[in-house]
Amino acid sequence: MTPFTDLRRLSLNQATTQRWSLREAVEGCARAGIPAISIWRDKAAELGLPASARLVRDAGLSVSSVCRGGWFGATTEAERLARLDDNRRALDEAAALGTDTLVVVCGPAPNRDLDGARAWVEEALARLLPDAEAAGVRLAVEPLHPMFTADRSVIVSLGQANDLVERLASPWVGVTVDAYHVWWDPRVYHEIERAAGRILGFHVSDWLVPTPDILLGRGMMGDGVIELRRLRVAVDAIGYDGFIEVEIFNQALWDTPGDEALALMARRYLEHV
Amino acid sequence: MTPFTDLRRLSLNQATTQRWSLREAVEGCARAGIPAISIWRDKAAELGLPASARLVRDAGLSVSSVCRGGWFGATTEAERLARLDDNRRALDEAAALGTDTLVVVCGPAPNRDLDGARAWVEEALARLLPDAEAAGVRLAVEPLHPMFTADRSVIVSLGQANDLVERLASPWVGVTVDAYHVWWDPRVYHEIERAAGRILGFHVSDWLVPTPDILLGRGMMGDGVIELRRLRVAVDAIGYDGFIEVEIFNQALWDTPGDEALALMARRYLEHV
Repeated sequence: MTPFTDLRRLSLNQATTQRWSLREAVEGCARAGIPAISIWRDKAAELGLPASARLVRDAGLSVSSVCRGGWFGATTEAERLARLDDNRRALDEAAALGTDTLVVVCGPAPNRDLDGARAWVEEALARLLPDAEAAGVRLAVEPLHPMFTADRSVIVSLGQANDLVERLASPWVGVTVDAYHVWWDPRVYHEIERAAGRILGFHVSDWLVPTPDILLGRGMMGDGVIELRRLRVAVDAIGYDGFIEVEIFNQALWDTPGDEALALMARRYLEHV
Repeated sequence: MTPFTDLRRLSLNQATTQRWSLREAVEGCARAGIPAISIWRDKAAELGLPASARLVRDAGLSVSSVCRGGWFGATTEAERLARLDDNRRALDEAAALGTDTLVVVCGPAPNRDLDGARAWVEEALARLLPDAEAAGVRLAVEPLHPMFTADRSVIVSLGQANDLVERLASPWVGVTVDAYHVWWDPRVYHEIERAAGRILGFHVSDWLVPTPDILLGRGMMGDGVIELRRLRVAVDAIGYDGFIEVEIFNQALWDTPGDEALALMARRYLEHV
């Protein structure tokens, strides 16, 4: 399994540097030699969309994705339609920011009816496909770890995401593979093979033992137990050659000066991804 | 989906009343009209095995299971063999306590090699089958929630447990279905059907939103989002008619007086299971 020797495929997901504005993140990437960034909508909104787009373009950074669409579940029809509209705005924002990939976190069920919530996610994605095509932006469905089923995503395994995307049968929808969310799955390598041709993103971080926090407990690559290189090699083997985003929700890392965090992240990426 | 109208199938898993000794738990069950108990080995050891067995028998309580065997992974061959020996002792203890079911939590990988750890679990179970038969006690493999992959169990879904048990092909190994560990799985109802004839236990609690703690954050039935009755009806529909254990690791519940906890548990069982 060949390690990388350069940072050409590395992307900073802004969730890793929560305290930085988009401007600080863009300048930090430039200083660290990181060629790409995944932009969060709230960070772009702070600066305004046109200024954000110009900032990233002028810095020569690629935009690996925009985070995030999804969050489809709601108790009323009006609210469900409002969620769809928000996703349409997210598609347009992604296009404006210069990426063809919108990460989609599908959201929780608004009640105990998991089946119903999952059916609505599929319908919502189907309804958004024409908008995705119009914007030239693909919906990258990210299955989350099952521990987020109740509050973040009813899509909880790569197999489930593959089934969903197969049924939708469109070039405008695919999957995001995040090592943190899928590493536990005995079927993950099988499902990565099945996802050939529709992997739209690959995210890395690590699973710490013990996990300090459900949401903010992700680790830097190498500090945990995930077989990161094996997963990366599997994703590459079926033809994925896009950016690899480092997305780490971790309070201690957020409290570290951004330049230090980026230097560590680049080093660990070369060592462990 | 018909609710229960009596407590005939209810069992107190001792993990729910962590502060109670076995004697206190047995007396508490008698006061609350709960006909069965799942005994933890450390609790039986406090009192001694013969006295524990006599206590439960004299109270007329059924023993739905003993917790627990498993924890197979280790870095050295000597330690792996020691773990097998411990499981043999657990089988004998279960028999002495008057149950034919040993709950098995398979343990984490001792390193990053998940595949290797999973292969060893299968081999370990195969090696224990003659001992299980000799003791007259079945190994009830309990898949844990994937959030415990790194520190408690490399067996993380009912599908994986079914695959494992199918390959072992013995009446001395089956599965424990714990609602808390499997509710998130889009395939859970399919896998419950597949488990027909080899479900050796059914555990209930609830998934709280937000989850207060990874290990000690389970909720009382009805306080969370799990479709408990639907799961119970599915398990019954394929022929399971054994005890239903309430197993709740929750600090707040542990801090509640035991009789109150049991009264609440019995009421919620009738309402939600």
